[in-house]
Amino acid sequence: METHLIALDWGTTSLRAYRLGPGGETLEERSLARGILQLDGSGDAAFEGALDEACGDWLDAEPGVPLIACGMVGSAQGWREAAYVEVPLDAGRLAAALTPIETRRGSMFWVIPGAIQNGPLPNVMRGEETQVFGLLAGLDEDERDEPLLIGLPGSHSKWVTVENGRLGRFQTFMTGEVYAALLGHTLLGRTVVPCEAFDAAAFEEGVRVARSDDGRGGPLSTIFSSRTRVLTGGLRGESQADYLSGLLIGHELMAMAEVCQADSHQRIVLVGNSALCARYLWALEHSGFSTLSFAPQATVAGLWRIAERAGLLANQPADEVFACSAKR
Amino acid sequence: METHLIALDWGTTSLRAYRLGPGGETLEERSLARGILQLDGSGDAAFEGALDEACGDWLDAEPGVPLIACGMVGSAQGWREAAYVEVPLDAGRLAAALTPIETRRGSMFWVIPGAIQNGPLPNVMRGEETQVFGLLAGLDEDERDEPLLIGLPGSHSKWVTVENGRLGRFQTFMTGEVYAALLGHTLLGRTVVPCEAFDAAAFEEGVRVARSDDGRGGPLSTIFSSRTRVLTGGLRGESQADYLSGLLIGHELMAMAEVCQADSHQRIVLVGNSALCARYLWALEHSGFSTLSFAPQATVAGLWRIAERAGLLANQPADEVFACSAKR
Repeated sequence: METHLIALDWGTTSLRAYRLGPGGETLEERSLARGILQLDGSGDAAFEGALDEACGDWLDAEPGVPLIACGMVGSAQGWREAAYVEVPLDAGRLAAALTPIETRRGSMFWVIPGAIQNGPLPNVMRGEETQVFGLLAGLDEDERDEPLLIGLPGSHSKWVTVENGRLGRFQTFMTGEVYAALLGHTLLGRTVVPCEAFDAAAFEEGVRVARSDDGRGGPLSTIFSSRTRVLTGGLRGESQADYLSGLLIGHELMAMAEVCQADSHQRIVLVGNSALCARYLWALEHSGFSTLSFAPQATVAGLWRIAERAGLLANQPADEVFACSAKR
Repeated sequence: METHLIALDWGTTSLRAYRLGPGGETLEERSLARGILQLDGSGDAAFEGALDEACGDWLDAEPGVPLIACGMVGSAQGWREAAYVEVPLDAGRLAAALTPIETRRGSMFWVIPGAIQNGPLPNVMRGEETQVFGLLAGLDEDERDEPLLIGLPGSHSKWVTVENGRLGRFQTFMTGEVYAALLGHTLLGRTVVPCEAFDAAAFEEGVRVARSDDGRGGPLSTIFSSRTRVLTGGLRGESQADYLSGLLIGHELMAMAEVCQADSHQRIVLVGNSALCARYLWALEHSGFSTLSFAPQATVAGLWRIAERAGLLANQPADEVFACSAKR
């Protein structure tokens, strides 16, 4: 089937390429270990090389197809810096701020900017803004305007408030990266016994402790219990990592609810890796939130939606392009 | 002058040896990079070798002198495990629980046990208990029985409540180790420009943010601002580490005050490294605490006091030994 868009999710460690058909459906996809910090060489040539590896054959077959990308490829360390756009913002404002690169093949490669929230504690995202608009595109018309809190768990979790279809205030929690640094580079890792199986009870106990009176010491304090419980026989080394994960996620959710002023009726959608989202869903449910849902993937839908708003799609009628330009 | 005790502070990375005179005064001291994880070989021979390196000549000169040690030398990875003693405890209970080792020279080497606080989040210390009793030994008689909070900043900060001269409940905050792991092993380190000079203003801003409404997100969230402030030009790379230090210490003190139920009149004494204690003193003062003092060193005094309570001192009158035994 004819390709209407090549969509790329180009992060720090990986490059995912999607060949999309006329309705945005994925015709073919590829994943390469060609994140922006893992390229051969440097400069334009390194990015061109990785792009050819990912989808040179698609471009050979249909040379005029437009390309759009989100993620760290638009950072200062990426191919071309796409300056952050300030929140609140809608898909149109993002679409109006794409950074173009003319590739050596002559194809246009469009980079989606990240989002920034200025203030005393500035917050930034790159890639998650595309997931947010992908998720919103999949909602029913009447759901789209209702207040919504979107959680994107990961190495840096983002919590994004959405009102009237616009990406509003957001928070970052470095939970995933802190977890990895604690296990890999502090005393806590010494008593951990590696274990593939997920110990749900240990995870749940961690969440419970973070939410209890004992959790008032905050993560800098409670994490020490992941070691002392092993030393005193209250926790197996095989369960320590899941207990620590529960502690950190529990603390994240307590603080998130406070900062995002989320009450138990808050509608929350999680987007991302299923196993990680399952942990967050469990913890949210046990934190009293009742209106929860989950979407495993929203990046491709977001890339498609933003390309559409920017009038990039192959064979897109001119009036849609105009409509988008007018909104700029 | 005659040696009455050889006192050792034997931790994970270093071994400090003190030759003490009849009143506990330091006649000579040495510091070696012979922590328990940095010995040549293993088992008794490795510890004997390090001990000879540190003070073999002292023992040659006065073979009968007793030795006493605190710190990780009494851990499961140390020379001989000295089981934790549960709080609350006084110096007498510690002195009654020393673990003896007969060295190959025939001298007795006594290991001070650590302290444990059992409960849902168990807390342990090894070495700090000796500092606490050293500090208490230096107080006036009438001060010793007043409620006191002792802060021991470090890679794992300890906050110890003292009542009626007894070591009571205590908390651990892994602030120092978390700080090092964040700078060395997360994205936060990437924007740091190494700098010898201390940026007091950046540190103070970190403390202020942690205590402000913006700090409600907790350390998992606020730490991200140490990167984004650099990205957005609000903080120099040279100041990032001190800002991050201020954030973490600010969060630690907020949580400590809550968990230790410390109000602004709480009498607080800090013990330890001067530069680090200076940061904590500044942060405590700006957190509203008014009764603050500082002691740079308390380990030697603690080793002496516990040896005295145990009746170990060379030429100690028999009635003092008896007095101590009776209290066991």
